[in-house]
Amino acid sequence: MKTSVTTVTPIRVRGYHLDGYGHVNNARYLEFLEEGRWGYFDERPELFEVVKRAGVAFVAVNLNIDYRRAAVEGDDLQIETRLAELGTRSARMHQGIRRANDGKLVSSADVTFVLLDVAANKAVPVDGALREALMPLVME
Amino acid sequence: MKTSVTTVTPIRVRGYHLDGYGHVNNARYLEFLEEGRWGYFDERPELFEVVKRAGVAFVAVNLNIDYRRAAVEGDDLQIETRLAELGTRSARMHQGIRRANDGKLVSSADVTFVLLDVAANKAVPVDGALREALMPLVME
Amino acid sequence: MKTSVTTVTPIRVRGYHLDGYGHVNNARYLEFLEEGRWGYFDERPELFEVVKRAGVAFVAVNLNIDYRRAAVEGDDLQIETRLAELGTRSARMHQGIRRANDGKLVSSADVTFVLLDVAANKAVPVDGALREALMPLVME
Amino acid sequence: MKTSVTTVTPIRVRGYHLDGYGHVNNARYLEFLEEGRWGYFDERPELFEVVKRAGVAFVAVNLNIDYRRAAVEGDDLQIETRLAELGTRSARMHQGIRRANDGKLVSSADVTFVLLDVAANKAVPVDGALREALMPLVME
Repeated sequence: MKTSVTTVTPIRVRGYHLDGYGHVNNARYLEFLEEGRWGYFDERPELFEVVKRAGVAFVAVNLNIDYRRAAVEGDDLQIETRLAELGTRSARMHQGIRRANDGKLVSSADVTFVLLDVAANKAVPVDGALREALMPLVME
Repeated sequence: MKTSVTTVTPIRVRGYHLDGYGHVNNARYLEFLEEGRWGYFDERPELFEVVKRAGVAFVAVNLNIDYRRAAVEGDDLQIETRLAELGTRSARMHQGIRRANDGKLVSSADVTFVLLDVAANKAVPVDGALREALMPLVME
Repeated sequence: MKTSVTTVTPIRVRGYHLDGYGHVNNARYLEFLEEGRWGYFDERPELFEVVKRAGVAFVAVNLNIDYRRAAVEGDDLQIETRLAELGTRSARMHQGIRRANDGKLVSSADVTFVLLDVAANKAVPVDGALREALMPLVME
Repeated sequence: MKTSVTTVTPIRVRGYHLDGYGHVNNARYLEFLEEGRWGYFDERPELFEVVKRAGVAFVAVNLNIDYRRAAVEGDDLQIETRLAELGTRSARMHQGIRRANDGKLVSSADVTFVLLDVAANKAVPVDGALREALMPLVME
């Protein structure tokens, strides 16, 4: 397991990721970003445990994505994921998608989450054990 | 509501349906077929009720699809859906995807389902009220 | 053809639109938004012609989406699409996704485009016949 | 590079792969299968070269898939891909999707391809250098 606050997830662009222009489709990037966030939790099983024990889920309330370069079939991409900000009632993750061969940014995104108490189905503050687990991971 | 045993669902091909060749991607056709099956139940709310009351679900166990022609952006497709066979423990739906302008077949598929008792999580025979509701819909 | 500056595109939520929580997946909303933008051009064939004649394409450079409510299977959604801003080198569309039965906003998004000269593969100003065609459609 | 005639491609099931039942959606398996076929060519760059030099493409004309078990979030799947049959005008690949932890088969599929001369846009026989390259890979 890595100790870096950033997780890097590799994805190779395939034919089914493309649209009619031969470029990765706008919607598909959101799946790449979700894959990166799952990878972030894969690398931090203890964090995943804290979240599960708290009975909460991170629910996206906003996503802001820049499309900078087109990615094409065969491109090796790296999805970079880190926790960028921790508020009292929300958290923001920053994600970048780079071409592995030249490091150029294909896309970058900020995703804002609220914490949902799954049983009560309502937003709750980010506090207690979860806050303690998340604080050391924040890097603006 | 129609009385025909075949339901026709229209779909217009869009950029996000295509792959890098500019053709509708193989996987996307399965979403078109699923859309057609939802449309089949939309046209038969009483059948949908019988299924719900029985606490069962149709679970696909086999799908056999022929790809005959490429569909491209702007094509108006018609998804035709009908019940083709009703066994004691399974059912088969036949679906065709045609271009609306010339009636040419783009794709055709057979989907075989078993009936799952959702609570018990096991396959059950197609009998009783459900069989009565389905029998008049069969057209090979 | 409508004369309104807003196009409304209906989509019914199906099983394949959902993720493991039983909610429409974040990425799928971007396909709903793209469907809405195709619908916008379907309603304005003369605008589509101007774009084609100019040899240009609208390329998304930023998308900012709020997720407000979860949509579930069977929900009838309305995708509202309009041109919200026209700069010298970019355009912004505003899109809303509402539940048809109560008008509540499920999601809203702003999508910023630049105009790409397809042959030269570079961004070009929004001017001439295209600007004339777009100006009357702007509603902030 | 492996010398086996079967390529094994790992995929971990994520939230965005699921449908409303919490199971991998039927259509998504076709993307898993396509991923497996790209992996097959990644492991055989010399075969990929022969195909490219011949100016041909493999176009799927039939897909027959059995759905045996539901896959759920977190499952580690292995996509097994091999060339199962080589006719004069078509080829068939056999693919299996297994759970890594117990080896149980989740799904299996046969995909039949014809060889398309891309420039002429017509089917051509599988012969010459391409046939020589493919023959040693066949395992029924």
